Amino acid sequence: MSQARLMDGTALARRIVERTAHRAAELTSRTGVRPCLATVLVGEDPASVTYVRMKQNRCRTANIASRHVELPAETTTARLVRTLRDLSADPSVHGILLQHPVGDHIDERAAFEAIAAEKDVDGVTFASFATMSFALPGFVSCTPGGIMRLLDAYDVDPAGKRAVVVGRSAILGKPVGMLLLARDATVTYCHSRTRELSSVVREADIVVAAAGRPRLVRGEDVKPGAVVIDAGYNAGNVGDVDFATAVERASLITPVPGGVGPMTIATLLEQTVDAAARQLAG
Amino acid sequence: MSQARLMDGTALARRIVERTAHRAAELTSRTGVRPCLATVLVGEDPASVTYVRMKQNRCRTANIASRHVELPAETTTARLVRTLRDLSADPSVHGILLQHPVGDHIDERAAFEAIAAEKDVDGVTFASFATMSFALPGFVSCTPGGIMRLLDAYDVDPAGKRAVVVGRSAILGKPVGMLLLARDATVTYCHSRTRELSSVVREADIVVAAAGRPRLVRGEDVKPGAVVIDAGYNAGNVGDVDFATAVERASLITPVPGGVGPMTIATLLEQTVDAAARQLAG
Repeated sequence: MSQARLMDGTALARRIVERTAHRAAELTSRTGVRPCLATVLVGEDPASVTYVRMKQNRCRTANIASRHVELPAETTTARLVRTLRDLSADPSVHGILLQHPVGDHIDERAAFEAIAAEKDVDGVTFASFATMSFALPGFVSCTPGGIMRLLDAYDVDPAGKRAVVVGRSAILGKPVGMLLLARDATVTYCHSRTRELSSVVREADIVVAAAGRPRLVRGEDVKPGAVVIDAGYNAGNVGDVDFATAVERASLITPVPGGVGPMTIATLLEQTVDAAARQLAG
Repeated sequence: MSQARLMDGTALARRIVERTAHRAAELTSRTGVRPCLATVLVGEDPASVTYVRMKQNRCRTANIASRHVELPAETTTARLVRTLRDLSADPSVHGILLQHPVGDHIDERAAFEAIAAEKDVDGVTFASFATMSFALPGFVSCTPGGIMRLLDAYDVDPAGKRAVVVGRSAILGKPVGMLLLARDATVTYCHSRTRELSSVVREADIVVAAAGRPRLVRGEDVKPGAVVIDAGYNAGNVGDVDFATAVERASLITPVPGGVGPMTIATLLEQTVDAAARQLAG
């Protein structure tokens, strides 16, 4: 059997960011206002610091202004909620990203819900989850949205296909399943309590591995010809899919890195410009 | 093979309503306030009129006051939204039910979102869908919530089982799948675009038929020993399951009528008293 074709998230993300940069510049020249993403960071977790910095850098390349708010690790829920409400009310901010996870002492859900729906460019609010689930206009969670863009770019139509999502987190597994369902896939959610995971995954025409467990999905679990999306990020650039064996069975597969990862930020930037365009038109 | 045991929704709903009536009376004697459900009806569709009247009657038997608002068929979205916001702000109303579907000229989603989350005892808002999906405290959609109560009453633990939901509506199929997922089932959503529906249903330890298509699920599609929940209501008291053949293969099955139906109203009443208890305590 021949090897799977790679789904090149780096190249697709670059095209999306270029188009986004063009739209942002056009919007600025038309309105005099630069689209602006506010990033909020609580504490000094090194990985979070790195992620936020990366997002700010990408904003620059996309002609998006960024405003950064840093709060000390001991910030209370009330203080964080106030910050997010203020940003929600600030007309010079068009999109808001709360870098998460936040500390355990903070009610993360209360913080997310303090983000105005029209600025929720990271797709973390109840309203965004519901609009994704009901196929209504709204923002998508960035990684799920990026996965759908990848599928579209490689002409994978989910309609009528069996899709298996491994993982059920609030910002990845659950929403990507809902987006696939909205596109008429027959969707199965698997997770840590699923019995005989291998045999369930083997039913899938499209597999989305999003469990955060290194090499959980092995080649022998992949139905020959399936499309394999690896949304896992584990230490040492290892995904949730055992790439070496899965590439021998899949028809299309995302590499790690360079697959889903770059699509997440591209979606964030694109949605920031969407938000700005809508707010500046309103 | 022996016939399935019937899941008696009528008897279970009666016990829930009795307990709810007792809690409501206790709450009233303690606070001087009767729990109150506001029902809102737009137009004069005979089925809707009947449903609303039935709900009001059941409120009475559960020691719940009901306030009824009737609006003419030509009511605008703005007018309906205003009515629902007023009820949301009215401290003497604890729960709000908008009888739906409303007319095609009304933005039903805008109307639902005008219901305060803490009074959404019918579980129709984005917030309720999200709390169901993320296993957070909140109100459930009444039919999905009733289905989970039936499963519990018959000692069906969804954990690790394969559940297949046929149908993906916003207030039935989607939320019941999310509730089953929160209880650790491996959940598959099927719908009109699903290929080989019979073979997918045959994988299920728990089948929830919620497609609104008479006798869509036939006995031959039921895995021997499966639990079959029929959430369909079609003309002539016909469910979405072909009862006569399915009863020969299932281990447990809901009749139509007398299965899921009575559980829906019982859940509505119970959540109304929950809402009142919370609001009167706050």
